[in-house]
Amino acid sequence: MPGPTVAIVGATGAVGSVMIDILNNREQVPWGDIRLIASARSAGKKITVRGAEHTVVELSPEAFDGVDIAMFDVPDELSARWAPVAVDRGAIAVDNSGAFRLDPEVPLVVPEVNAAKVHERPKGIIANPNCTTLSMMTALGALHSEFGLRELVVSSYQAASGSGQEGIDRLQEEIAAVAGKHVGERSGDVAEALAAAGLLAEQTPFKAPLAMNVVPWCGSRKDDGWTSEELKVRNESRKILGIPELKVSATCVRVPVVTTHSLAVHAVFEREVSVEQAHQLFDSASSIVLQDESRGEVFPTPAGVVGEDPTYVGRVRQALDFPNTLEFFVCGDNLRKGAALNTYEIAETLVQG
Amino acid sequence: MPGPTVAIVGATGAVGSVMIDILNNREQVPWGDIRLIASARSAGKKITVRGAEHTVVELSPEAFDGVDIAMFDVPDELSARWAPVAVDRGAIAVDNSGAFRLDPEVPLVVPEVNAAKVHERPKGIIANPNCTTLSMMTALGALHSEFGLRELVVSSYQAASGSGQEGIDRLQEEIAAVAGKHVGERSGDVAEALAAAGLLAEQTPFKAPLAMNVVPWCGSRKDDGWTSEELKVRNESRKILGIPELKVSATCVRVPVVTTHSLAVHAVFEREVSVEQAHQLFDSASSIVLQDESRGEVFPTPAGVVGEDPTYVGRVRQALDFPNTLEFFVCGDNLRKGAALNTYEIAETLVQG
Repeated sequence: MPGPTVAIVGATGAVGSVMIDILNNREQVPWGDIRLIASARSAGKKITVRGAEHTVVELSPEAFDGVDIAMFDVPDELSARWAPVAVDRGAIAVDNSGAFRLDPEVPLVVPEVNAAKVHERPKGIIANPNCTTLSMMTALGALHSEFGLRELVVSSYQAASGSGQEGIDRLQEEIAAVAGKHVGERSGDVAEALAAAGLLAEQTPFKAPLAMNVVPWCGSRKDDGWTSEELKVRNESRKILGIPELKVSATCVRVPVVTTHSLAVHAVFEREVSVEQAHQLFDSASSIVLQDESRGEVFPTPAGVVGEDPTYVGRVRQALDFPNTLEFFVCGDNLRKGAALNTYEIAETLVQG
Repeated sequence: MPGPTVAIVGATGAVGSVMIDILNNREQVPWGDIRLIASARSAGKKITVRGAEHTVVELSPEAFDGVDIAMFDVPDELSARWAPVAVDRGAIAVDNSGAFRLDPEVPLVVPEVNAAKVHERPKGIIANPNCTTLSMMTALGALHSEFGLRELVVSSYQAASGSGQEGIDRLQEEIAAVAGKHVGERSGDVAEALAAAGLLAEQTPFKAPLAMNVVPWCGSRKDDGWTSEELKVRNESRKILGIPELKVSATCVRVPVVTTHSLAVHAVFEREVSVEQAHQLFDSASSIVLQDESRGEVFPTPAGVVGEDPTYVGRVRQALDFPNTLEFFVCGDNLRKGAALNTYEIAETLVQG
């Protein structure tokens, strides 16, 4: 009997490419047909998946016929329009856009934290969290189950690929433009070097130079000075962890890293918590790798863990002045666990129960 | 009548060079003699200051004869040994190392916050704060005077020059080594590119690759997983602001920026505080430049403000879930206000009263 049919919508994008890599390297689910769906521009492209050549087909209602699970990695407006179409054609839609994440009729799932929610999907849609939120969620989920999370203060160090392939390309071009120029020592000389290399300020997805800089702005502008990314961290953390009253403040900052988001987390719990207890929890979680000083002077960095599936946790400290509070630093590949991998794990959970 | 004699100890280092630049561009104090002091290796070097050529002299007790104010920008152990020598020879020592900052008989001064403390110096020594702490101190001082600071949760985005000229050189070399290589997409490929360019891991001051990466470790290892830099932020903030019971948690992270430290600050106050009130305070502080969304979609970035004297503040937001709490992002040149400029302003305060 053939396995279920899975579709990747947005198969040729930055996240879609990682999704195909995951399909190639993670063979537990014996998918029947694998369907690659993208825009008209990419239709007809040939991509080899699990040893067989597949032709990318154009996004259309008919593209979903016979599909059991459709994984969407496309912009919000495309998901909003097409995920319901996929459901109408009989598929379960697992969506990695922001279109449905806060919809009360759509579960927001991180399998390590709330796998059972995949079965509560009145709209036939399951949402995958924002990559920044996801990067810390397995670690926080493990701690919350034991100590009861109450407050979060989070600062992010977000990679260029959070802005897709365009973001990766821009950062690589900027790095090439500043190399050997000894810039970064006077106000605006990084911007001048970029302009001299033809990298126009109005064409960056980052609002400011990213090479040799950090940019305290991710996403779009929301009320009262907040960015969309910062509000996602707050609202999605509450929904995934099931703590509607969780207190959250986030500051989201883009850094010149290609891929893998990092976060500095200040987490306050209901009960007393020690570094040793946290270490034990992280050690026993299969999707977390602990790299901490107590085991030698090590810590995770984004360039060290990019391409890896687990969430890496380090710098675990008990706050000196705040009761029941831990500080830690977490690195997670925003294209893998932060996007493609978690989406795929939701699909696996649907198949494997 | 000639003005007082000032000495720069460490005149040829990264901070000393900025100090000379400040002497050249800030002419309020009519210094009499200007004495440049450095190690034997740099002695004899000629440097032009305020239009006159000066010869660097070797550090010795006699070098301090006739000096009124000696500004020290040298490692802790050199300051610990030589600042008392300068005092013995009749100088006031203004020290930018960590040697004396927490000594109860040494004031730790940011002129905008606690200028009067320069007169309480039983040892003849005045300490200049750590650059990371300093980067947020004028902004916090202004807010504290109005609203009463109670708690701080801080994450830093610290520049390479925090590790001196060695740090600047290493980052520039690393950027040159990774440019055009399209690394940062697989685990460890940044490290491989550095090794291939002859940049050995054991020779970096950063413990890990810094190009296309962030490194959650600044300073030396202290108890319970904390770094020296994180404890400095806590202990020095308490001393400068005069709040011994201030609650502080800091996570210090190095980023691939040449110069200018940035911090994401979560600050809890005794009294209610609004973004508008904070804006007014920042606007009226001469050493703060406010760049915030309410004035168009702008924010400070380190590469945008490097080389500038003021502290730049942006992303000012009222916390959504925490009472009496502001979030903001601050950028300050760690070699200027974070080191040389504040040291010089302490010297100016001594002269001008």
